[in-house]
Amino acid sequence: MSKVLGAITMSMDGYIAGPNDRVGAGLGDGGEPLHDWMFRDPAEVDRAYLDELFSSGGAWIVGRTMHDLAEGWGDAPGFGVPVFVVTHRERPTDVKGDTTFTFVTGGLGEALRRARAAAGEKHVIVMGGGEVLRGCLDAGIVDELALTIAPILLGSGKRLFDGIGLADLELEPAEVVESPSATHIRYRVKSEASTIAR
Amino acid sequence: MSKVLGAITMSMDGYIAGPNDRVGAGLGDGGEPLHDWMFRDPAEVDRAYLDELFSSGGAWIVGRTMHDLAEGWGDAPGFGVPVFVVTHRERPTDVKGDTTFTFVTGGLGEALRRARAAAGEKHVIVMGGGEVLRGCLDAGIVDELALTIAPILLGSGKRLFDGIGLADLELEPAEVVESPSATHIRYRVKSEASTIAR
Repeated sequence: MSKVLGAITMSMDGYIAGPNDRVGAGLGDGGEPLHDWMFRDPAEVDRAYLDELFSSGGAWIVGRTMHDLAEGWGDAPGFGVPVFVVTHRERPTDVKGDTTFTFVTGGLGEALRRARAAAGEKHVIVMGGGEVLRGCLDAGIVDELALTIAPILLGSGKRLFDGIGLADLELEPAEVVESPSATHIRYRVKSEASTIAR
Repeated sequence: MSKVLGAITMSMDGYIAGPNDRVGAGLGDGGEPLHDWMFRDPAEVDRAYLDELFSSGGAWIVGRTMHDLAEGWGDAPGFGVPVFVVTHRERPTDVKGDTTFTFVTGGLGEALRRARAAAGEKHVIVMGGGEVLRGCLDAGIVDELALTIAPILLGSGKRLFDGIGLADLELEPAEVVESPSATHIRYRVKSEASTIAR
């Protein structure tokens, strides 16, 4: 059955980007090692984890800031499925190779409805940034949080969880994939009813 | 061979205690669930993990604040091995059942030397609080960090890592023990030379 997954990498001290994240340095100062498990030093299990995540996704949701910082993932984003970008500023749909970026101005609820429709039986994956993922967690629409913990300390930057009242969220670690480069923990969210119509 | 282990539980958002930690509520407001994996809801693997940790320890190091907040672990602390309490205020040695608390005023270096001597071939375990554990990490004397991540968000309180310049610390996840109640990640510290004589 189709689920909504949150999927993101954070440092051991809770940062998803270092300070001064900007176009050309989307993970901020010192933040690049967050993604060493994907790009610089992936173990076989990391590759398999990422492949499985991508192949499970029928649509992605991403925040506008993250989209812009990643420069739309260049000319060949390679998602292979529709990506819905949550934004306040309208922008025409952007087709790049096998990936269509649709800019949604109707909030998380609209993004979720459109992503669900596009994903069919596959999962909707919310990849961040922090604001969008926290919003989805807060709204109770995330079924599972696929949290990758990179074995680094950043000391400053953007935190994933920053005290916006997620203390009531009930989580249960359901599965762990371990590698020398990162620890991937799949949490089941035991949430109450969603505040956004599903 | 004897190693120095750091062993502590933190929430997913990096807290080792909620706000207002005090005698009688050592884990602070809302912080008690940090230890559900030990007391309220341990799985078999959690019990085994804790047993193995305790049996591997030949001596423990703890900060005075944590000792006092835990009220010296009551009348029967049950460590079974010497515990060295790092403090600025002298206090006579305290013998309770099978556990001796020695109050060390000569800093982490002295605590480490005395704990090593007491531990013999077994490990020295630094259990916190945050200040003592960060100090040991910063001084390069921790060989392995046994970090338990409780599946909760606290939103406020005392953070384990709080940006005191540990960004250079090189860590590698070496082993993971997973349970529905917590995720126990053993990190190997690939550190430079210690700043404290070993």
